[in-house]
Amino acid sequence: MANPTAAMLVIGDEILSGRTRDANMHHLAGRLTEAGIALQEVRVVSDEHARIVAAVQALSAGYDYVFTSGGIGPTHDDITADAIGAAFDAKVDVREDARALLEAHYAKTGSDLNAARLRMARIPEGATLIENPVSTAPGFHLKNVHVMAGVPKIFNAMVESVMPTLTGGPPLLSETLRVERGEGEIAGPLAELAAALPDLSFGSYPFQGNGAYGANIVVRGADRAVLKNALSRLSDMLGI
Amino acid sequence: MANPTAAMLVIGDEILSGRTRDANMHHLAGRLTEAGIALQEVRVVSDEHARIVAAVQALSAGYDYVFTSGGIGPTHDDITADAIGAAFDAKVDVREDARALLEAHYAKTGSDLNAARLRMARIPEGATLIENPVSTAPGFHLKNVHVMAGVPKIFNAMVESVMPTLTGGPPLLSETLRVERGEGEIAGPLAELAAALPDLSFGSYPFQGNGAYGANIVVRGADRAVLKNALSRLSDMLGI
Repeated sequence: MANPTAAMLVIGDEILSGRTRDANMHHLAGRLTEAGIALQEVRVVSDEHARIVAAVQALSAGYDYVFTSGGIGPTHDDITADAIGAAFDAKVDVREDARALLEAHYAKTGSDLNAARLRMARIPEGATLIENPVSTAPGFHLKNVHVMAGVPKIFNAMVESVMPTLTGGPPLLSETLRVERGEGEIAGPLAELAAALPDLSFGSYPFQGNGAYGANIVVRGADRAVLKNALSRLSDMLGI
Repeated sequence: MANPTAAMLVIGDEILSGRTRDANMHHLAGRLTEAGIALQEVRVVSDEHARIVAAVQALSAGYDYVFTSGGIGPTHDDITADAIGAAFDAKVDVREDARALLEAHYAKTGSDLNAARLRMARIPEGATLIENPVSTAPGFHLKNVHVMAGVPKIFNAMVESVMPTLTGGPPLLSETLRVERGEGEIAGPLAELAAALPDLSFGSYPFQGNGAYGANIVVRGADRAVLKNALSRLSDMLGI
């Protein structure tokens, strides 16, 4: 059985300008890996309608699941819902269940559900809401695309709302061997071992800094014992 | 005069698996913004030949500059040079000037230039080398694509080697107003101001945490005084 595949679309000028450092990609990558879903591509695009539409269509067609972050708040630059609607030819309008959620929330906090806030109840036709336990305004999923907020605390909460609805695959496990030796010395034996064990995936990730250098050798697969055994063979080959 | 556009391609399974948190995107975004080059898209793809080739071709056709990170070391999973060659139909082979750099480097450190290390001298035909002051093995650029290492310290050094060769545009300046008020209360006046000043770009970036919530309102443009004036108008509208 193969692992389901996933892609992420980060919508946000603030990341492309270098103003903000994205945190959602790393979080989602870890949670999907734990669930046996293989994140295979991430795209970061600016807050422009046509770019979002094109990216959503490409990723939705190419992967089992797509997750977006950003652009679902109340301000004029929050254009994700309309872009998702356009990508799938779905009408976008205020939805009564989403409006009711916001009405109850703002009544409790003593604020008005003004026109700007009501924008957050605009949901493409045919979508299912994603619960937001942090600030109420919901995300949604339409076809295979899950649309979530950009604020990390809210994004993470929405990811937890979504996880139980996803179908995972076999575990995506990894084991790491840290080798304090130049990659050029490890490369020969590593390539030999990778060729001998074609069902496993081997990566070499060099590090350098604080006076140390070397590489973390990571092997990935579905069986912990097999991975440990592979790294122990590598240790033997390297004489460490 | 318009700003030149750029895209970045991050090549690395380790980022998609959640093992490593990418640092290069944020660094490059900041340096390009300082140079007046607009980073408009980032893609992260896994270490698979066909995916790298397709992404390089799409980004090279769509933007003025493309910057890649990752996959140019000596191990079997370092396949970026071949993918770039395939993307542009350029032969990839050991190049004498790159070999000479590596020979001198390894002679100095008392190591062999073995077959694995020699892989780092494989450069697509027609490319120009990018200097690597940290660990010698060069990057390269071919057409509008700049190919650099994934290790942040080396990536950053290669970015500095490349920056003087790029043609920047007018400054991409921004000014920020921090508003400790719900986005829903700011959204109306902000949209009004954005409509009145169509030459500027306004973004609202909500924050939440440590007991505070609100939004950073960022305005972007090429003239500092105009940006400051716009935010001062917004302050007046919000009565802050």
